[in-house]
Amino acid sequence: MPFRDEAQFVQWLRRRWPDRAPGLTLGIGDDAAIVKPARGCELVLTTDLSLGGVHFRLDLHPARSIGHRALARSLSDLAAMGARPRFALLSLSISRTTRRTWISAFYDGLGRLAKSQGVALIGGDTAVTASGAVIADAIAIGEVTHGHALRRRGARPGDGLYVSGRLGPSALGLALLQSKMRTGRGSSEGRGLSARDRRAALQAHLYPAPRCGVGMALVRRGLASAAIDVTDGFARDLARLCEASGCAAVVWEDRLPLVKLNGARNRKLGPLELGLYGGEDYELLFTVPRPRLSRVPRTIGGVALHRIGEIRSGHGLTLVSREGAEFPIESRGYDHFRRADRI
Amino acid sequence: MPFRDEAQFVQWLRRRWPDRAPGLTLGIGDDAAIVKPARGCELVLTTDLSLGGVHFRLDLHPARSIGHRALARSLSDLAAMGARPRFALLSLSISRTTRRTWISAFYDGLGRLAKSQGVALIGGDTAVTASGAVIADAIAIGEVTHGHALRRRGARPGDGLYVSGRLGPSALGLALLQSKMRTGRGSSEGRGLSARDRRAALQAHLYPAPRCGVGMALVRRGLASAAIDVTDGFARDLARLCEASGCAAVVWEDRLPLVKLNGARNRKLGPLELGLYGGEDYELLFTVPRPRLSRVPRTIGGVALHRIGEIRSGHGLTLVSREGAEFPIESRGYDHFRRADRI
Repeated sequence: MPFRDEAQFVQWLRRRWPDRAPGLTLGIGDDAAIVKPARGCELVLTTDLSLGGVHFRLDLHPARSIGHRALARSLSDLAAMGARPRFALLSLSISRTTRRTWISAFYDGLGRLAKSQGVALIGGDTAVTASGAVIADAIAIGEVTHGHALRRRGARPGDGLYVSGRLGPSALGLALLQSKMRTGRGSSEGRGLSARDRRAALQAHLYPAPRCGVGMALVRRGLASAAIDVTDGFARDLARLCEASGCAAVVWEDRLPLVKLNGARNRKLGPLELGLYGGEDYELLFTVPRPRLSRVPRTIGGVALHRIGEIRSGHGLTLVSREGAEFPIESRGYDHFRRADRI
Repeated sequence: MPFRDEAQFVQWLRRRWPDRAPGLTLGIGDDAAIVKPARGCELVLTTDLSLGGVHFRLDLHPARSIGHRALARSLSDLAAMGARPRFALLSLSISRTTRRTWISAFYDGLGRLAKSQGVALIGGDTAVTASGAVIADAIAIGEVTHGHALRRRGARPGDGLYVSGRLGPSALGLALLQSKMRTGRGSSEGRGLSARDRRAALQAHLYPAPRCGVGMALVRRGLASAAIDVTDGFARDLARLCEASGCAAVVWEDRLPLVKLNGARNRKLGPLELGLYGGEDYELLFTVPRPRLSRVPRTIGGVALHRIGEIRSGHGLTLVSREGAEFPIESRGYDHFRRADRI
């Protein structure tokens, strides 16, 4: 067992997470945590499961990445609402053979991301199983000025369609990891990639940066009419935004911020395939009404914003190719009920 | 697969959980939920894992009970803080072979308890694994008047020690279930029990009632100096309260509200053993300063309150037997880090 008893584990946690943060009345160690929301704010609440074999693999992902990604998933949901992240709770189930160094690295990864985003860990639950997989459920709590949260359903025909950052690097990073695991060396998938692009792809997969700063700026500047984060693939998440808003979208291929793969011939790893269906990019997809288009900056906090298409009436997603031809975008991407075990 | 895709599952959930509740701005279906805390209130947040093989067994517990117990664990934490339960989120991982009738019964159990306690389900996450065990993580959010939450650390020497309801019936109910599973008929453990006591024990184990009403009344009446809920066994949880408060406790055996087992000779199932170490009773254990003792009612909302001992200076727990002899109470009870797999 990595700890003598639960008391020792809680003590270990409390040493790492001091019981002080703005708005925090009571943190780790009692029956529940107590927080005081800021005046005039609503609270935004979300929770995301991370399961071994589904969202990560113990033989593929370092513990620090698993901790980081577990919290990043939830913070990305807050970003999509334009909320300021404040607090997190973590439910963690480990096996009795899990080593203390693994747990320590897991909390390091989670903790560094939390600190960088101004998040305090205020509670959680822990279980130990005889042989089970590692399971984490990260709950994130944010604040947003009353009535100002971004939702999926506000897009209207004529709105501009934007995405932050880059689409596809996380899926490319995963492919590089898997290939290295298979072959024990540099991957064939990575042929043609510069060392820098390879590092960027691995970083995007192992340590994705939730776009909280972008979401908060969109709220502060009153720019977006709707937003969603790209977790299950751009196509799937754009379809969700359109469905919630009751409208269609066209996407301009030549404006998509895809990864560059000079030597890649593998269709499954083509830049467009990665960008549309790759998933786990944790970028923000958002819409901006026409009168506000000119106010959208090129970057927010160093993150590029790309105008990639337009909202239309009707339903369905259309890709306009570089040559001007229109193709329907398949509604693929990750769906738990269609395919068990993601990784 | 029990549902065609995630969209169908979310739609199914939303039909069961209308997007309307006091203080709820946005419920199931977007990237996150939004709530507005009542004026002058702090928010109390807690989360509890329920794992197959640890907290329940699929062959022992009906789905309705598993759903009920998953939420009851979290609501009991709110009760221990004296908070009014308001909202819940649920992370659920099922296997692709899980039947829709099972999921339906699970949410029935969770939903009935939620409604009876005024709780709205406002979000969550769902995953499907190829073969994994069922995993639920229930997050509960409550409200309490600013500065009035009950904590573990407020007990002082001289305070009276109280417990609500009865100690031991849940562990007895589990033993009855396990014995029935083993023998395929009425259990030897249950010999000497009336049909009514047997039903009460099974009910206490399968559908425990979190004591939110008691906790809220203790806050409203300003009675308690400290509180904790009895989840891992009376002895373990009393030790936690005493440790947090930096004090000791004596418990009077003849005042403990134990189960009655006329014919039982099995030491492991003796009433005192069940009461001290049984666990999962979800009763409230609380302390009351001497000047307020006379104001403690006999019952709150139909739940009996028993004065069972006293807080002392020092440390450790002492049992005063019916004959007046003093014995140390072992600090046993469930600890995840000491024994993996509870059930």
